[in-house]
Amino acid sequence: MGSVRQRQLKLGAILAGVGTDFSQWRDPELPPNASIDIDWYIQNARLAEEAKFDLVFIVDSPFITPDTAPHFLNRLEPLTLLSALAVSTSHIGLVGTLTTTYWEPYNVARLFGSLDHISKGRAGWNVVTTGLEGASRNYGKDKHLDHALRYRRAEEFVDVVKGLWDSYEDDAFPYDKKNDVFLDKSKQHALNHQGEYLSVAGPLALSRSPQGYPVIFQAGDSNAGRQLGAQIADGTFAAVEDFESAQEYYHDLKTRAKALGRDPASIHVLPGIAPIIAETDEEAREIAVRREGALDIDKKLVALGRAFNYHDFRQYPLDAPFPDTSNLTLNSYKGHAERILRGVNADRLTLRQAAERYGSWRLSFIGSPQTVANEIERWFVGNAADGFNIRVTNPRDFKLFRERVIPILQERGLFRTEYEGTTLRDHLGLSVPENIWTSRKREDSSRADAA
Amino acid sequence: MGSVRQRQLKLGAILAGVGTDFSQWRDPELPPNASIDIDWYIQNARLAEEAKFDLVFIVDSPFITPDTAPHFLNRLEPLTLLSALAVSTSHIGLVGTLTTTYWEPYNVARLFGSLDHISKGRAGWNVVTTGLEGASRNYGKDKHLDHALRYRRAEEFVDVVKGLWDSYEDDAFPYDKKNDVFLDKSKQHALNHQGEYLSVAGPLALSRSPQGYPVIFQAGDSNAGRQLGAQIADGTFAAVEDFESAQEYYHDLKTRAKALGRDPASIHVLPGIAPIIAETDEEAREIAVRREGALDIDKKLVALGRAFNYHDFRQYPLDAPFPDTSNLTLNSYKGHAERILRGVNADRLTLRQAAERYGSWRLSFIGSPQTVANEIERWFVGNAADGFNIRVTNPRDFKLFRERVIPILQERGLFRTEYEGTTLRDHLGLSVPENIWTSRKREDSSRADAA
Repeated sequence: MGSVRQRQLKLGAILAGVGTDFSQWRDPELPPNASIDIDWYIQNARLAEEAKFDLVFIVDSPFITPDTAPHFLNRLEPLTLLSALAVSTSHIGLVGTLTTTYWEPYNVARLFGSLDHISKGRAGWNVVTTGLEGASRNYGKDKHLDHALRYRRAEEFVDVVKGLWDSYEDDAFPYDKKNDVFLDKSKQHALNHQGEYLSVAGPLALSRSPQGYPVIFQAGDSNAGRQLGAQIADGTFAAVEDFESAQEYYHDLKTRAKALGRDPASIHVLPGIAPIIAETDEEAREIAVRREGALDIDKKLVALGRAFNYHDFRQYPLDAPFPDTSNLTLNSYKGHAERILRGVNADRLTLRQAAERYGSWRLSFIGSPQTVANEIERWFVGNAADGFNIRVTNPRDFKLFRERVIPILQERGLFRTEYEGTTLRDHLGLSVPENIWTSRKREDSSRADAA
Repeated sequence: MGSVRQRQLKLGAILAGVGTDFSQWRDPELPPNASIDIDWYIQNARLAEEAKFDLVFIVDSPFITPDTAPHFLNRLEPLTLLSALAVSTSHIGLVGTLTTTYWEPYNVARLFGSLDHISKGRAGWNVVTTGLEGASRNYGKDKHLDHALRYRRAEEFVDVVKGLWDSYEDDAFPYDKKNDVFLDKSKQHALNHQGEYLSVAGPLALSRSPQGYPVIFQAGDSNAGRQLGAQIADGTFAAVEDFESAQEYYHDLKTRAKALGRDPASIHVLPGIAPIIAETDEEAREIAVRREGALDIDKKLVALGRAFNYHDFRQYPLDAPFPDTSNLTLNSYKGHAERILRGVNADRLTLRQAAERYGSWRLSFIGSPQTVANEIERWFVGNAADGFNIRVTNPRDFKLFRERVIPILQERGLFRTEYEGTTLRDHLGLSVPENIWTSRKREDSSRADAA
C-alpha cells in the first residue's frame, strides 16, 4: 500500500466514563454513573463510529484505594463491556486493557479470541503488566512481580496466547455432515509450551478468529516497556509529554522495531490527548484554566503519587524542594515516574510546582478547531505520531472534535471519510498473520520439493 | 409469596450450539458453525425470551482433546457471549459456567458483577470445579486438584467473590458535584480475606450490581457436589437419570439446605432435558430411534469415557463384562461416574450395553406436545423438579416446545404468560441480598440502642 496512497491518521476514542482524573466527573453534562452505564458506552462508541474512528479504547487497572480517581473506583470490566459494544456497533475497533501479571493465558486467549469472533474481527488487546504494587494482594501474592520480570513474563505470555490462537488451522473444520466429519483431527494442534514462567498445553477450544490474532497494543514507556512494544505491538498508546518527547519516542520505537526485523510502519504510535476546543483559541484557553482551577492541590498530590505506587505526597511541605524519593522503588509506572523526576531535577521544582505540572498532567491540544487540527497535522507530519487516542469524557469537547476538527482533517486528506474494511486490521492496514502450523507445513513441503 | 400464588415452573434454555453429543450437529437445519456464531446465539436467546423462559444457560469446560464432542471443540467463551446477549435481549436471565479451580476470584467477581450491570440485573454464575484432569496442564499445574479439595476451594471461592461484590455499600456514591464528593469513603470496604486456599484484599472496583449478587447455580452431583449446592446455590442443574432418581436428588438437596438453615424453596432444582416432540407419541419415538441409530459405538465409548476423565474404553472387548475400573480414580465427573457404575453393577452390563445406555445418555421427554407437558407436570407436582433446563440445539424440537408445549403449561397455570419483573432474581422469586457491611452496621446500631 504505502506509496500508492497518502499515509492516514489513526484515531482512537478513550471511553473512560467519568474520567481518570479528579475533575471531569463534575462536568454538568456528564452522567455521574457513566463508568458503569452500558448505555453511555454504547452511545459514545456509536458516535465515534459515525465519526469513522479506528477504535475505542478501554483503560484498566486491577487495584484501587479510597483515594483513586472516579473512573477507576467503579467501572465495567473491559472484556464484558467490549462484547456488549461488539453487537451494538459494526465497524469500529474494540480495544481493551488486560494485565499479563494476574491472569492465566488460557483464559485470556479465550476471552479475546471470543471477542474477535463476536465482533467479526474488531478485537484488540492492550497488553500491560500492572503498575500498582497493591494489585498483588488482590491475587493472593505477597509481593508484586519486579518490573523487569513483569516485562519478560509479558513477552512469554503474549507468545503463549498467540500459540493458543493457532490451535486450529483455518480449514480444520470440514463440517461434512454426510460423512460425519466435524473436525479434521490433523489440523488441531496442542501448543505444549514449557517456558520460563508459563506452562500451557492447549489446544484452545476456539477456532482462529477473523483477524487471525486480535490486534496487539501496548502502553509501557520505560526501557523494558519500549522494547516489549517494539517486539509485540501493532500499536502503542504510550504517554508523551510534548512534541519533542513524542518525536524521540516515535523514532526510538520504530528504530527498535526495525532492529528486530519488523517493518516500522506496522507499529502505530498513538499518543493520548485530551483536546480542549472552543470557537477561538482564547476561549479554549479560558476553559482550560477554569478546569485546572477546579482541582485542589491534595488531589494533584494523589495523582502525582500514582506514578510512585500511590506514595502519599500529602505528608511533605508543599513549598520545600521536591522530597527525596531515592528510597521509593520505581517498580510501578516506571517510565512515567522517571519522566517526572527528570523534570523535577532539570527545573529544581518544589513539591507544589511538581504537583501543578504533573498532578493534573495530560497532553491537551487547546484551541479553535483549526488550531487543534493544525497541531494534529504537525505531529503527524513531523513523525511524532501516527494518530491519536482522544479522551472523550467531556461531551462538549468530543462533539466539537467530531463535528469541527475531523472535517478539517478529512478535507486535508489526512483522515478517512468512510471505512474501507470491516476489521480493525483493515482500518490499520495490517494483514492477517498466517497460522504457524500452516506456515510450518508449507515450509516443510517446499523443503521436501527442493530436496 | 408462596401460599398466595400457585408455584410456577422455571425454564432454562441450554444454548450449546452444535451440541454436546456427537449427533446433533448433523441435523440439516442446524448451521455447523452455530457454536461460534454470535448471531445464532442472539436468535435463539430472543426466541427463548419471546417464550418467557427464565434464563439461557451456557455450558463450559476448559479442556479438550481431538475426540471431544463438536460443541466443546470450538465455542465462544461464556462471559463475552453473555455480555453480547445482554444488550440483545431485555428480560431473560443469562447464566454462564465458570470453574473456581482455574480462575482468580478477583477477576471472576469483576466479570460477573460487570455482566450484571450490563444486563441490568440478569446475570447468573454456574459454579463448577472442572471434571477433566487434563485442564490442569492448560493452567501450568502438573496435577488436577483432588475432588474433595476442589469442592472445599469452591466454597471458599464463592464466599470471596460475594465479599468482593460487597465492596461498596449501596449508597457509597453521593455523586455530589457541587461539593466535589464522588465517593463516601466510609462506604468502600476492603475484604482482606485470608483463608485456607485464597488470600484476597479488595476492594473490587465495582459497585454492587442490580441483583446485589448475581444468581448462583451449581451442577455437581457427588456427595460433595450436593453439599456445595445446598450451601451456595440459588438453583441447580444436576443431571438426573429418571423420575425416581430425580425425586431422590430433589429431596436430598432440599433436606441438606434446610439442615443448613436455608429455606428449601429458595433453591430451584432444574434437571436438564432434551425433549423429542412430534404430532404423535409414535412419531416422536421413531425420531428418537432414528437419531440414536446415527451414532456409532466408538462415539458412545468416547462419551462414556468422559465421566472417567476421558478414559479410552475403545481398547476393551465390547461384549465382555464391563472392564475393571477400580484403578481409575474418580476425580473427574465423580457423581456421573458413580451413577454409571451403579447401573453397570446392578444390571451386570457388558461394555457395549453400558455404552448404549450411558454413552448417548440424556434425559429425553419423548412424545406429543401433550405427553411432554404431562411428563413435565408429573415431575413438577411430584417434587422431582422445580422446572427444567431445556436443550434447544435441535431447531425443530425447540420450536415445538415453544409453540406447542409451553402453551399447554400456560393453560394449566404452571408457567408465566408475561414476565412480571426485569431481573433474574425477579423471575426466580429471590430477593436482593443485603450488603454484609450494611447489615453489620445495622446490627451494631441496634445492639447499641439495646445497651
